[in-house]
Amino acid sequence: MTDAALATRSAFVAACREAIGDAHVLTDAHDTEPFLTDWRRRYQGAACAVLRPGTTEEVAALVRLANTHRVALVPQGGNTGLAGGATPDASGAQAVISLARLNRVRALDPHNNTITVEAGVVLAEVQRRARDAERLFPLSLAAEGSCTIGGNLATNAGGTGVLRYGNARELCLGLEVVTPQGEIWDGLRGLRKDNTGYDLRDLYIGAEGTLGIITAAVMKLHPQPAARVTALAALASPHAALDFLALAQRTAGPLLTGFELMSDFCLRLVGKHFPQLRYPFEQSHPQIVLLELSDSESEEHARTLFEQMMETALEQGLVDDAVVAENLSQSRAFWDLREHIPLAQAEEGLNIKHDIAVPISSIGAFIEETDAAIAQAVPGARMVTFGHLGDGNLHYNVQAPEGGDAKAFLAQHQTMLNRIVYDSVDRHHGSISAEHGLGQLKIDEAAHYKSSVEVRLMQTLKAALDPLSLMNPGKVLR
Amino acid sequence: MTDAALATRSAFVAACREAIGDAHVLTDAHDTEPFLTDWRRRYQGAACAVLRPGTTEEVAALVRLANTHRVALVPQGGNTGLAGGATPDASGAQAVISLARLNRVRALDPHNNTITVEAGVVLAEVQRRARDAERLFPLSLAAEGSCTIGGNLATNAGGTGVLRYGNARELCLGLEVVTPQGEIWDGLRGLRKDNTGYDLRDLYIGAEGTLGIITAAVMKLHPQPAARVTALAALASPHAALDFLALAQRTAGPLLTGFELMSDFCLRLVGKHFPQLRYPFEQSHPQIVLLELSDSESEEHARTLFEQMMETALEQGLVDDAVVAENLSQSRAFWDLREHIPLAQAEEGLNIKHDIAVPISSIGAFIEETDAAIAQAVPGARMVTFGHLGDGNLHYNVQAPEGGDAKAFLAQHQTMLNRIVYDSVDRHHGSISAEHGLGQLKIDEAAHYKSSVEVRLMQTLKAALDPLSLMNPGKVLR
Repeated sequence: MTDAALATRSAFVAACREAIGDAHVLTDAHDTEPFLTDWRRRYQGAACAVLRPGTTEEVAALVRLANTHRVALVPQGGNTGLAGGATPDASGAQAVISLARLNRVRALDPHNNTITVEAGVVLAEVQRRARDAERLFPLSLAAEGSCTIGGNLATNAGGTGVLRYGNARELCLGLEVVTPQGEIWDGLRGLRKDNTGYDLRDLYIGAEGTLGIITAAVMKLHPQPAARVTALAALASPHAALDFLALAQRTAGPLLTGFELMSDFCLRLVGKHFPQLRYPFEQSHPQIVLLELSDSESEEHARTLFEQMMETALEQGLVDDAVVAENLSQSRAFWDLREHIPLAQAEEGLNIKHDIAVPISSIGAFIEETDAAIAQAVPGARMVTFGHLGDGNLHYNVQAPEGGDAKAFLAQHQTMLNRIVYDSVDRHHGSISAEHGLGQLKIDEAAHYKSSVEVRLMQTLKAALDPLSLMNPGKVLR
Repeated sequence: MTDAALATRSAFVAACREAIGDAHVLTDAHDTEPFLTDWRRRYQGAACAVLRPGTTEEVAALVRLANTHRVALVPQGGNTGLAGGATPDASGAQAVISLARLNRVRALDPHNNTITVEAGVVLAEVQRRARDAERLFPLSLAAEGSCTIGGNLATNAGGTGVLRYGNARELCLGLEVVTPQGEIWDGLRGLRKDNTGYDLRDLYIGAEGTLGIITAAVMKLHPQPAARVTALAALASPHAALDFLALAQRTAGPLLTGFELMSDFCLRLVGKHFPQLRYPFEQSHPQIVLLELSDSESEEHARTLFEQMMETALEQGLVDDAVVAENLSQSRAFWDLREHIPLAQAEEGLNIKHDIAVPISSIGAFIEETDAAIAQAVPGARMVTFGHLGDGNLHYNVQAPEGGDAKAFLAQHQTMLNRIVYDSVDRHHGSISAEHGLGQLKIDEAAHYKSSVEVRLMQTLKAALDPLSLMNPGKVLR
């Protein structure tokens, strides 16, 4: 590092201390360490400082200082991202700007069904506040106890409620954003309809902090359903699951809030590593679907609807067996099976993960073709296929052959297997990152599969809004 | 006009004839006339030609010619817009590019619940195709027999299904767009989840053709409900209507697909000009709400749900009287009342229209305060207040005092009344154009109420994507 560069950094850090107070500018290695590694410990970065502003005005002041001193900023929420989007590079020239102290719920308007929260509010807290007001905030995902709403919006988080309620994008009505120039855009509108110009909101959502820093948001609330009931259905194939999905949507309409696919191998892994979780059918079946109904009337109504649906599906031969949860704890047990798949997989050893989406109608063909290509490339590779079938989103993961050396398997095959999977996704007009974003993990893959027109449009937007490239450089776009 | 300008235009027109064929380049005044005036006959433009390309490639070729010859293009769909967004300016230097010949349904995928349509497909045709496949395309508005899906997306159309299904934006999964440079961006993805970069789709939606030309789209379909049932409730005030809305959402959850407010004066106007439409209650009430349930089970189930809801509302004193439609024709009759309000208003004479939105919780206060301010400013002015209460969207229109000269009333008071209404909207953090867009009608108003940060961000995007300002200049932004 040149002396000039070092002088710049220390001038920047000193100015930040001035702006937000010593206590909120971390530079000691012990203090900064938790902010410099991603949750999966895949990336290790460095930073000239970790900045912890407490208000939107402080965020804006820091961004103006970053402009003055030409220091790049890496926004960070709960640091639970899966693509390294919140981890700085290794140079030590960047600063992390943590939004954790912007953690106020600014307003909750039950008649408007909205909650206005700052970026650093933890997702579970938003859910809790909604519940206290007899409302539902339906965004739900594994990291909800520590991820923040700002990060959810920056990555357009998905999770288990998308089928009915949409991604984070669909749950957001308005934003407050600090621009790369350090201005505050107040777009905190709580409106269902507003056609007065360009949709800035959706441009910032999913941009992973590369176009500005989200500091607050107006999120939609929904009525709290009277009951949620879960059921499991055993099927022969993903194709059958698709026909069953159409039947379930026809029968239950918008009451259908979950439709998750789990292959037999997923459940066998769960059984192996968590034997206390019982396999739910007497004999094994190739595929299991977990369904959830969120009913505004009653538990009884939901159960009756499920029973009619299952009867029709059994008659039509779509489903081979079915069980409707009889109470809350059984509903919980069914979800436990689903949620233990990633944990069981981790117990089984290192594996190659893919978070992909294809048109729902292509899921059967995608699995067949890609399974076959992988079996040919690496005989014995074990497919861990599960996910949000109702959204066309699969966690399509590859585990080393039984008894094989997982580490060697990854070293030898990961690049090739990624290529097989993503080429197949591309043939089916799918997405190589359905809900995790690009971060630094997938920028080259995204550039490979996107058209040159699309890459240029993205570059044009980045250059226009952030001409000095101070906002999370090296993420989303190279 | 200079000779050079004239030569440019005729060279451009000749090149267009070469590119898409003589028959599709209209220059004769008789042929071009229908394209040069907006539907409400508020704007009269001129054009060097009306271009009618038949394919996306032809659109791209015409845009490249516009670049070569520096001719601005005004995209046009069904020409049913309410803000002059599709009408060229009066110079005669611009060309209209009609998307009407891009009218193919490219695909319908029932398992994926998507339909892929070209920009020129008429909305009612999309609805029809969906119905034929036992699906619902829920976008619905008065002009659906002639407006096109491209125009619906360019203006982010709203309509009567927004409460449950969202605006045009929420119904769109992917777009094909010709950029201002004449490249084709193929973003025709039919995915529920795709987090691989900036949200170009939503940037084009609602941009009214100022950032590029939408040539095709993948739209979401929903399951066809088994039954739709309508009811009317009589209430004392908009405040009561808000409490009733909360009750209806709690009781019916996502089955509630319509919640329309109509003031007593609206229904009296309907009764005056369309006496065959019977007032639905024995005595008159200050406000009437029309509710619609879309039920995936049965008509009987919907009616039972309505009856329970109305009973509770009557018990709680939210509602003074209620009637549930007993059959389809009565449901239709209830909607007729609602749909005849704008027609009755037109019969009553010229009036001042406002298409505004405020947070739903502010509707009562907005109406009270603004009614009072208008009554003070123009004693006797008659308020025609109706609209999509469930979306916070009101058609808040002002009619001249009884027996007054409507034309003189408009000439004298329109500017002042707009200011009163929009200032009030602004105080309530609302929108001055909820579903009609800005076009050329409201650009100055929008610039007046938007923050300078927001205007600059919009200008930055426009300059970056369309540096020569060839895409519908003078719309959305000045």
